[in-house]
Amino acid sequence: MKIIVDAFGGDHAPLEIIKGCADAVRELDLDIVLTGKEDVIRRVARENNLSLSRMEIVHAPEVITMDDPPGEIVKGKQDCSMAVGLRLLAEGKGDGFLSGGNSGALVVGSSLIVKRIPGVKRVSFGAIVPKAKGFFMLMDSGANLDCRPEMLQQFGMMGSIYMEKVMRISRPRVGLANVGTEEHKGGELQQQAFHLLKESGLNFVGNVEGRDIPADAADVVVADGFTGNILLKTYEGVAISIMRQVKEMLMQSAKSKLAAALLKSDLYKLKARMDYNEYGGAPVMGVSRPVFKTHGSAKAKTVKNALRLTKEYVATNVIDMISKSIRPVSQGNTADSP
Amino acid sequence: MKIIVDAFGGDHAPLEIIKGCADAVRELDLDIVLTGKEDVIRRVARENNLSLSRMEIVHAPEVITMDDPPGEIVKGKQDCSMAVGLRLLAEGKGDGFLSGGNSGALVVGSSLIVKRIPGVKRVSFGAIVPKAKGFFMLMDSGANLDCRPEMLQQFGMMGSIYMEKVMRISRPRVGLANVGTEEHKGGELQQQAFHLLKESGLNFVGNVEGRDIPADAADVVVADGFTGNILLKTYEGVAISIMRQVKEMLMQSAKSKLAAALLKSDLYKLKARMDYNEYGGAPVMGVSRPVFKTHGSAKAKTVKNALRLTKEYVATNVIDMISKSIRPVSQGNTADSP
Repeated sequence: MKIIVDAFGGDHAPLEIIKGCADAVRELDLDIVLTGKEDVIRRVARENNLSLSRMEIVHAPEVITMDDPPGEIVKGKQDCSMAVGLRLLAEGKGDGFLSGGNSGALVVGSSLIVKRIPGVKRVSFGAIVPKAKGFFMLMDSGANLDCRPEMLQQFGMMGSIYMEKVMRISRPRVGLANVGTEEHKGGELQQQAFHLLKESGLNFVGNVEGRDIPADAADVVVADGFTGNILLKTYEGVAISIMRQVKEMLMQSAKSKLAAALLKSDLYKLKARMDYNEYGGAPVMGVSRPVFKTHGSAKAKTVKNALRLTKEYVATNVIDMISKSIRPVSQGNTADSP
Repeated sequence: MKIIVDAFGGDHAPLEIIKGCADAVRELDLDIVLTGKEDVIRRVARENNLSLSRMEIVHAPEVITMDDPPGEIVKGKQDCSMAVGLRLLAEGKGDGFLSGGNSGALVVGSSLIVKRIPGVKRVSFGAIVPKAKGFFMLMDSGANLDCRPEMLQQFGMMGSIYMEKVMRISRPRVGLANVGTEEHKGGELQQQAFHLLKESGLNFVGNVEGRDIPADAADVVVADGFTGNILLKTYEGVAISIMRQVKEMLMQSAKSKLAAALLKSDLYKLKARMDYNEYGGAPVMGVSRPVFKTHGSAKAKTVKNALRLTKEYVATNVIDMISKSIRPVSQGNTADSP
């Protein structure tokens, strides 16, 4: 399997990206295509003693930054490492694409260069988030701030297929993020999406509240991208804050330091479990070929984990299944522009 | 000081409410007016050996339940314990009002029976939430799902006055909950509210993300009630879930149990700090007299804490200051219906 990787996407690119790819080649049996400035990639690899074995480099002279407007990927920065990678994917020169760069640009580029699955209304981020046991997918976690009810229904459907095929959860429970569990809760968007999800044939468990999501209310949590992003970042922020407070508590006295020594490996495991950054990122759902977004802050370990998830995304028939599931819904509809 | 208390609001009413009031009379030097079914209150107090000293009872034959539509408080259930309490407050028969009952009904009743401060567009909940150090106020945390930018500006102003006067934070930092820190982030509501808050003369620190709020990004976090409620409940849910996981970790081996014994009091303190339910609840902001909402799940300790916060709300001139601050903004505007 050959994965195309944006070597210049993310805060620690290209070094940590190349490192993560080198680890993935060894541990995950992957071939890699790196896109980006070839001379820089070769120099960084050499200076850090990183092997480029099983890695091909496709030169891309530009980089799309976090400050660039997303649309630049198809305008002024058509030759950035992300755009070049997406074109290679569209042309079938790799089986999947991974980037830690500008999220907005990745959504626009996925829609316009790789194209959506016919019938899919919006490309969206399906963040994989740890809960008390296992994980849930948060769809959309930030790609589409403004959504219509039909989009939320599609998010539920796509998330359900992903969780079933890639995460091997049978009949994933789909919940709608809302401010109460009763059917009439929320605004018009939530009320209409509730109705559509209920009729969808999915294993819809109704509205779910932030209070219950970490405890395992659903396997797929559906939200518009604004709500989803607020939920995701609050989730992350509180987890980090509490783990930091636990750590401070463990450092404050001789007695607590002794306790800390006893707990060391358990604490490490708990922290790793709650740090969803370690898990790699989010599949970009609704695209006609597998695209995966890793965190802008990703270091080598996260990049490697993201490559493992990209590999699993490629290896399953998620996109085919979405394509088949969406046809009856979109009969007679035309897809929206991104 | 005399606080009116809805003896029939909340899951554990009236027993836990009366208990909390009895504790508050002793510890906080308060006089209480209980509203609700007089015979039941007297019987429950007698059966549980609770003193009703310094407590007056005003009979209310009905109870508004969690399932009643909020508007019932001024229609079919005008004689419920909440409505009777709000009328007493409006008539000046007490200095403040506390209820743990139906939130929607409390918003409608506060608006229509006690009335808003002239110029205030919406009555809102200002939940007091613990962060790494101290607390922040989340305005609105769920009273108004649909908001206009001017309302968000008022939430910032009211929250800022409350945090300054009641929580004694000088020049509270006001942040707007958003999906990124840059000025252009979010939808139209956030973009326009950003502009209004920037011009407001408040100590506006710009957009704040869920990732940074627990770490102390702002003293007042402004949001529409839908976003605020999602944020609040996720905050609570993740905190509870992680503390539960820490507890499970401490119970899993002989070694970890030893560590748990060493950490006992520290862990208890941390848990209490993160459990915002213990803090009492949220002031209902924008009402012309002090109304305080405690949690539906409140037991005696929380009720007592809520009474302490209600006392502080009454003792400060928050409402006067809001009234003075709002006039220049609302010149020529008429207030909306609730």
